[in-house]
Amino acid sequence: MNTEPPLLLALDFTGTFAFALNGALTAVRATRLDIVGVLTLGMITALGGGILRDLLIGQTPPGALQDWRYLAVALGGALVAFALGQWLHRLETPINVLDAIGLSTFAVLGANKAVEAGLGIGPAIILGAITGVGGGTIRDTLIGRIPSVLQSDLYAIPALIGAALTVAALHTGLYGLPAALAAAAVCFLVRMIGVHFGLQAPAPPGGRA
Amino acid sequence: MNTEPPLLLALDFTGTFAFALNGALTAVRATRLDIVGVLTLGMITALGGGILRDLLIGQTPPGALQDWRYLAVALGGALVAFALGQWLHRLETPINVLDAIGLSTFAVLGANKAVEAGLGIGPAIILGAITGVGGGTIRDTLIGRIPSVLQSDLYAIPALIGAALTVAALHTGLYGLPAALAAAAVCFLVRMIGVHFGLQAPAPPGGRA
Amino acid sequence: MNTEPPLLLALDFTGTFAFALNGALTAVRATRLDIVGVLTLGMITALGGGILRDLLIGQTPPGALQDWRYLAVALGGALVAFALGQWLHRLETPINVLDAIGLSTFAVLGANKAVEAGLGIGPAIILGAITGVGGGTIRDTLIGRIPSVLQSDLYAIPALIGAALTVAALHTGLYGLPAALAAAAVCFLVRMIGVHFGLQAPAPPGGRA
Repeated sequence: MNTEPPLLLALDFTGTFAFALNGALTAVRATRLDIVGVLTLGMITALGGGILRDLLIGQTPPGALQDWRYLAVALGGALVAFALGQWLHRLETPINVLDAIGLSTFAVLGANKAVEAGLGIGPAIILGAITGVGGGTIRDTLIGRIPSVLQSDLYAIPALIGAALTVAALHTGLYGLPAALAAAAVCFLVRMIGVHFGLQAPAPPGGRA
Repeated sequence: MNTEPPLLLALDFTGTFAFALNGALTAVRATRLDIVGVLTLGMITALGGGILRDLLIGQTPPGALQDWRYLAVALGGALVAFALGQWLHRLETPINVLDAIGLSTFAVLGANKAVEAGLGIGPAIILGAITGVGGGTIRDTLIGRIPSVLQSDLYAIPALIGAALTVAALHTGLYGLPAALAAAAVCFLVRMIGVHFGLQAPAPPGGRA
Repeated sequence: MNTEPPLLLALDFTGTFAFALNGALTAVRATRLDIVGVLTLGMITALGGGILRDLLIGQTPPGALQDWRYLAVALGGALVAFALGQWLHRLETPINVLDAIGLSTFAVLGANKAVEAGLGIGPAIILGAITGVGGGTIRDTLIGRIPSVLQSDLYAIPALIGAALTVAALHTGLYGLPAALAAAAVCFLVRMIGVHFGLQAPAPPGGRA
């Protein structure tokens, strides 16, 4: 069982639910799927990043397969998307907010787990970001889309910032609940500013080479 | 080396051969490949699900890389598909039967290994299904197709049923050769009924949301 | 930290740089990406094969996440591609040569690591080849292309030859720096002959079945 402080655990479950809901909705919109496909892709979106991180740091079985609450929350989010998908596009703003909470929490907790596993600064930041963006990347690849995180929007960059702040706090001995929340808040703000203003990461000079 | 009872081992090899043959045939029909591609995709279809399960439960190197007979049987199936692919579409029914034997055996043995690795009921059922459908999913993703298991046919659902029956037998102390064969037989029957009647898993309400 | 002899380590870094550069260039040419996408795909091309091998032999965290020099060299190669991509297509021949150095070194060192991890002859040869071709395969899958290694050119076959020679040298007690360089040289030559003459691996009889 996860032993995070209750507030972080609540954020983690919120993010898991939002990722599963949003991931399943994205999958339903992009292609024809049956119930197996919708639930699978929702759960992969929610749990895939953490599972990938756990495989890379050698923590097996991954936490998402050891603590049944993550599977249950992810299944719940995907089921809501399956049943109510037609009505949920009216809720784009709250879903975006919940998704950004998930991105922030996953990046901070993922970077923390990577440091605890003994990884250096660079790899820990990368693994924090992978925790945040990995699930959506696997989902996009499975439905034949180039992962949006590689192409557009500020999505990986806020995750990298949140993970970097977490690693900095850990290396200076300042990590704790306030620092984790502050790092997540910065990630969340950068993400929401990006959504609001439609910011894009820089493209290669001259466009397509 | 695998220490399953001889009958289960024979079914496991039969399934491995059928998955490699069928996986390589699917790959050849879907896209232009050379011998490396045909053999690789055949072997991935046959061994990918079990390798994914072993990575997730932390059993490394995966069994398929430790017991040379699995590699040999998978290579054999893929070579037959490479050499005789043009003639094999006449054999659709026997290939479907062999493929369903593979699905059933993989789901039952995969769920059993997951329980032995200490996983709970839900994750063990999921890992049993992954053992059955994971290889074909990787193959479809590599050749640029949305995995058919996410879209159509009753394929994941019989695997989930077979895995669930296996986990139930293990948790009630009834697991053994007869229970394993019974669980596999139910999975096999559901799969063959699905093939025969063209059954589909339910799609999201309203179709594409 | 990697403890290979300095010459092999230099070849390994050269290959890592070349794979990252070439991988990022391929990604930029194939699709619209932002800086996150270009750097991610360059680094995945360079490091993905070795990470996949390390996951499969159970060496976690993977070497590429433990020795910061690999991450740094891969990031450097991808940054050069991002900044100078428009001018680099004039350098096709030197990039092909560097890429073949990477393929050869990765195949030899990867097969060696697989044998050290206790794998048998067949799996060790396969893991050597995966070390060489795995990164490009993941990159191609992420950008929605069927991996070129499955379709065309002599790319996997020289890697398999280099890995097989390495395993043979290890099993006969002849492995050492000269044998490693000889195995890499054979792989390199087969690859360059393939590039020069446009050789293709055999396709299934009758083309698409």
